[in-house]
Amino acid sequence: MTDGARGRFITLEGGEGTGKSTLARALAARLEALGLTVLVTREPGGTPLAEAARGLLLHPPGEDTWAPLSEALLVNAARQDHVARRIRPALEAGHWVICDRFADSTRVYQGLAGSVPMALLRAIETEVLGGTVPDLTLVLDAPLDVTLARRVDRGGAQDTFEARGEAFHTAVREAFLQVAAAEPERCAVIDAALAPEQVLEAAWPRISALLPAVDAGRVPP
Amino acid sequence: MTDGARGRFITLEGGEGTGKSTLARALAARLEALGLTVLVTREPGGTPLAEAARGLLLHPPGEDTWAPLSEALLVNAARQDHVARRIRPALEAGHWVICDRFADSTRVYQGLAGSVPMALLRAIETEVLGGTVPDLTLVLDAPLDVTLARRVDRGGAQDTFEARGEAFHTAVREAFLQVAAAEPERCAVIDAALAPEQVLEAAWPRISALLPAVDAGRVPP
Repeated sequence: MTDGARGRFITLEGGEGTGKSTLARALAARLEALGLTVLVTREPGGTPLAEAARGLLLHPPGEDTWAPLSEALLVNAARQDHVARRIRPALEAGHWVICDRFADSTRVYQGLAGSVPMALLRAIETEVLGGTVPDLTLVLDAPLDVTLARRVDRGGAQDTFEARGEAFHTAVREAFLQVAAAEPERCAVIDAALAPEQVLEAAWPRISALLPAVDAGRVPP
Repeated sequence: MTDGARGRFITLEGGEGTGKSTLARALAARLEALGLTVLVTREPGGTPLAEAARGLLLHPPGEDTWAPLSEALLVNAARQDHVARRIRPALEAGHWVICDRFADSTRVYQGLAGSVPMALLRAIETEVLGGTVPDLTLVLDAPLDVTLARRVDRGGAQDTFEARGEAFHTAVREAFLQVAAAEPERCAVIDAALAPEQVLEAAWPRISALLPAVDAGRVPP
């Protein structure tokens, strides 16, 4: 298979309320308008087994909650299934994949903000991904007052991560910036305080750089 | 806390149908007759969160099954909760803990018989156990015709491991012997083809060696 035949793998990362799922849909629409086939998916989840693990992680039965180490193990079990059964086959079929959260969220939530040793997380990540690494990661970054207002507007029940306090969400924001700074070739930080259409325009140059030459010259609709 | 105040941690390992749960009950009864408090538990499971993970592992929803790597991650998530919430507190309270399957089962089923890299499994195990390692592991070993007959007698629906073929169960048996041979100080291989009361007698010398001096001289009832 030539490099041009493989699809591109884009992950969207950032704290709660930064607009990842909104951007995922907007990017998919623009790429589909260029004639590409796009799979929009999310983590944890994306396959029946991974969604079941997501439920166990985000809504644990009973009174207890998982320790960060167990969270990391559960989310990686889900990720292994998602990568093997859905993401890798889609990329090999030439489709683009846009994933709402991926391995960087584990580095941030369970590693930098959760104190699971990063060396262990990287060893697990390497085995679970098996070489299926993102071509581009967009890290959506916004002040906490902006993201909190969005989470309030969204309503609904909070999961185990959303329910944590301001210090946790501040640590998460700083950790995502740290992850992005460590891998500038792969990661682009996007100002997520902008309006959704402006976020899309801010992200687009990094996306269009991944397009095959024949498509890259086309003006997106 | 003195060494004498901590309870002892005994794990029972071996393939399906080797009589682990029968031996666990018999050992607990004999230790309780000596005045000890004994917690009998099992893996995967032993806490509400770990039992939920057990269900996801052994009876995955839908048509798909977990890859060995995901099995190892799920079972270790369960183990972390079990060790932190149940096993370690019991040992610190001076109770004895008898656990039906533990970390060696992961080394065997997902490592040696499942091809997950052993170095990764050991790194995860070290972090999950956090120093709570068994004082003694009894590896129950019997020919496949014996264990198959017991599994047939037991009846009921087979889980995802029990349902596998003879080559798998042979590999599991050999892998348990390999694990035991690598750590002879911790592990004792017990002939599980014997009758239950003979298995108990075969195991007892290794158990009684762990008793505090005041109890070790007593004749078990």
